[in-house]
Amino acid sequence: MEIYEVAKWLESHDNFIIVMHKRADGDALGSAAGLIQGLREIGKTAYAVYPGDVGDYEPYLTNYWAPKDYIGETIVAVDLATEGMFQRNADMYVGKVQLTIDHHPSQTFFANDTCLHAEKAACGEIVYEILLALSGKVSSETAKHLFYAISTDTGCFSYSNTTAACMRAAAELIEAGAPSTELNKVFHRTKSRARVALEALLIENIEFYRDGKVAVITRTKARMEQAGALERDADDIAKLPGQIEGVEVGIAISEIEDRNTKISVRTTEKVNSNLICAELGGGGHAAAAGCYVDRPVEEAKSMILQAVDKIWQE
Amino acid sequence: MEIYEVAKWLESHDNFIIVMHKRADGDALGSAAGLIQGLREIGKTAYAVYPGDVGDYEPYLTNYWAPKDYIGETIVAVDLATEGMFQRNADMYVGKVQLTIDHHPSQTFFANDTCLHAEKAACGEIVYEILLALSGKVSSETAKHLFYAISTDTGCFSYSNTTAACMRAAAELIEAGAPSTELNKVFHRTKSRARVALEALLIENIEFYRDGKVAVITRTKARMEQAGALERDADDIAKLPGQIEGVEVGIAISEIEDRNTKISVRTTEKVNSNLICAELGGGGHAAAAGCYVDRPVEEAKSMILQAVDKIWQE
Repeated sequence: MEIYEVAKWLESHDNFIIVMHKRADGDALGSAAGLIQGLREIGKTAYAVYPGDVGDYEPYLTNYWAPKDYIGETIVAVDLATEGMFQRNADMYVGKVQLTIDHHPSQTFFANDTCLHAEKAACGEIVYEILLALSGKVSSETAKHLFYAISTDTGCFSYSNTTAACMRAAAELIEAGAPSTELNKVFHRTKSRARVALEALLIENIEFYRDGKVAVITRTKARMEQAGALERDADDIAKLPGQIEGVEVGIAISEIEDRNTKISVRTTEKVNSNLICAELGGGGHAAAAGCYVDRPVEEAKSMILQAVDKIWQE
Repeated sequence: MEIYEVAKWLESHDNFIIVMHKRADGDALGSAAGLIQGLREIGKTAYAVYPGDVGDYEPYLTNYWAPKDYIGETIVAVDLATEGMFQRNADMYVGKVQLTIDHHPSQTFFANDTCLHAEKAACGEIVYEILLALSGKVSSETAKHLFYAISTDTGCFSYSNTTAACMRAAAELIEAGAPSTELNKVFHRTKSRARVALEALLIENIEFYRDGKVAVITRTKARMEQAGALERDADDIAKLPGQIEGVEVGIAISEIEDRNTKISVRTTEKVNSNLICAELGGGGHAAAAGCYVDRPVEEAKSMILQAVDKIWQE
């Protein structure tokens, strides 16, 4: 579906429920909240399924979660590439998504209709264009959500997905009233003391492979505890190894439950993260992807290093 | 002078020499190189005085430094607030600057003419507007320099000085050919191993005052040595303490020579950095300022903490 078709479609529907991917990030949350806000401003009823702990986003997201007795009629997914990534408490909507708005090249077209723009840095950019097509403008409240959607998915406009288009969208959102200074301070310039301690601990124990071109940090539960860190203190920690000079593949292995391990991969343009993670059943973008492995961290580490060796033969 | 007047003035002059502030940063270097490049593209001769070690900027700055026998006729300062900050090897031009292009509110109007836009995040933004007025466009080479001028002075569009205007300028520079992905990777997403070690060491020894609202890191020569860090590994290290949750005043004390100490201050909107540093003879912006003190680090620390207490009474 084209942007203008989505706008028309939204206009002709009501009683929306928005779903997103599990472990929702800023782009998923901001796209959902921005879409809900925009729909409400033209008189629609819209909610999202609460995706569990939303960390630093909590204060921005009051009033968007579906009450217990709310049953959505129009089911829209944002920033969701596959049904396998469905947020866990939204099972009742699996197989019933009518429209997906997404920017993942790994999109599996599981919904009746899909609005995919893989060239966009953030799903929030697509939602912004849809709302412009729908209403001609966005409110400051809507702009706020779309701004952090874009800024968090681009690492505050520093990642390789950052385009002129997304910077211009961000400029327009600031002009529409997005409190960019506050949002940037909260999401890009503030670290908890536990986060700072965790980073130091992970860096101290970093492992390098292939002459320093591959770097791995391992976020075990023990290290989380040692740093006094909660899950919210570890947000986007996967960017750490890739920041070190000479590293082409940065890997973060996170122990999230017994035998359940999350792997995040960040790569330069020399290597494709999506292909590496696809080896273990995951996916994402060329420069950033992830997967879940039902193995202890050490085994998961061997598996992902093998996947790197298979995909990246220099 | 207005932007269009500066453009006319540049058009009617030639044999330019550009000077900047000592310990030149990305905005000073990018503004100088962008201006030189733009002037050369309309047939002028232009050079800058080599400001000493330029760290990671070196590869981008070949061919801009004045040969030994070059005597500039038209002397232009960029990003230079006071003659006291003059780069040390440009003494022969002190008192002779014809035009200053600057964005510091602490500008002292030491030149014959001044083009001051204190509302701009970076001096590079002003240079960009001048070159647009002069030529209607900028080349990809010019865009490159102006892009990193803006991106480094805004902490990759995260600091409180980031405006819609500067993000739009950055979008236009990307469209003009600035290699933003490479520049962001080099200047915002890459840390040397020594930098990573230095950060961990400084964080480990951070000191908090006033219930955690004031945080001080102390970059002694001994710690630099322990981390294996060179001056270039310490660039913008002053942002570290201010990133920690609850900190309103982040201070970095750097031992740069015996008894000579550099102090950098970063504040939230609750406190004015410029006023604090002015107490010790320095200056800068509301959110970021600095000063030099001819005292050992421990004494310098007491002095700046006293200045904080004087300026910031909650």
